[in-house]
Amino acid sequence: MNTIAQVISPEDLLKHWQGHRNLTRRVIEAFPEKEFFEFSIGGMRSFSALTSELLAIGGPALKAIVERKERPYQESSENVESKSDYLKKWDEETDEINKYWSKLTIGDFSQTFNLFGQYNSPIVENILYFIDNEIHHRGQGYVYLRALGIEPPHFWER
Amino acid sequence: MNTIAQVISPEDLLKHWQGHRNLTRRVIEAFPEKEFFEFSIGGMRSFSALTSELLAIGGPALKAIVERKERPYQESSENVESKSDYLKKWDEETDEINKYWSKLTIGDFSQTFNLFGQYNSPIVENILYFIDNEIHHRGQGYVYLRALGIEPPHFWER
Repeated sequence: MNTIAQVISPEDLLKHWQGHRNLTRRVIEAFPEKEFFEFSIGGMRSFSALTSELLAIGGPALKAIVERKERPYQESSENVESKSDYLKKWDEETDEINKYWSKLTIGDFSQTFNLFGQYNSPIVENILYFIDNEIHHRGQGYVYLRALGIEPPHFWER
Repeated sequence: MNTIAQVISPEDLLKHWQGHRNLTRRVIEAFPEKEFFEFSIGGMRSFSALTSELLAIGGPALKAIVERKERPYQESSENVESKSDYLKKWDEETDEINKYWSKLTIGDFSQTFNLFGQYNSPIVENILYFIDNEIHHRGQGYVYLRALGIEPPHFWER
């Protein structure tokens, strides 16, 4: 790994990610059941479809990184038919992420891995991408909620 | 500072942030002049108002961190009346961020600072917050653009 001094610890990066995931969970909760699946603006995906994307990344991607398996990206619609199914799956993935994070060594972060067989970059960049992508799509969810007249949770509460 | 091994270097974190700023710049560019100032959904701020927020954070916040000055948060509307004014200011802040980043020592990141006299946390957390906040608001801009029938730049292009 890079030997120059560095600025964030693995523990703090996990806490940062799970903090964001906790906020996203509250955004999912804030949607009415029907609108979670059906509401969209400008032809974009519903928040349930965006959540399916996030669920297909988080846990599965971290598992793939730890195992160095270039499994293709795949969204699952199995057993996720209601908002409560999504929340249950979300919580399961929270545990998966904690579990696989504990298997990452400090040396892993700077190693290159070809995630999903298509995103070849240092593992730390892959992980930052997961977080950024979640914030990006959740920002979209905030607009959906506002357009529905619903007050979203505060961005700074994690 | 924390002595445990850490996962991202200051240089890579700056590159990550400036990559995001470059994408946000292209989102500003994608807005038609009028809609940049007037378009909104669900009572949210226009993208120009969101950009004013981002401009009041980035460079000024990093300068405040380096100088350890608890100056209050303040948006400026001086000399920013058109989209091109905003882009010019954006580029000036890009240089400011590079300049003040070079003055950060590795020990600074874990030190606590009360940014704007109100956000008291380790400096690395403040910086991650700047990036996250920008991604969040830019995600909002993506929905505005889609609602206007405009294709936003690809999220993964920095």
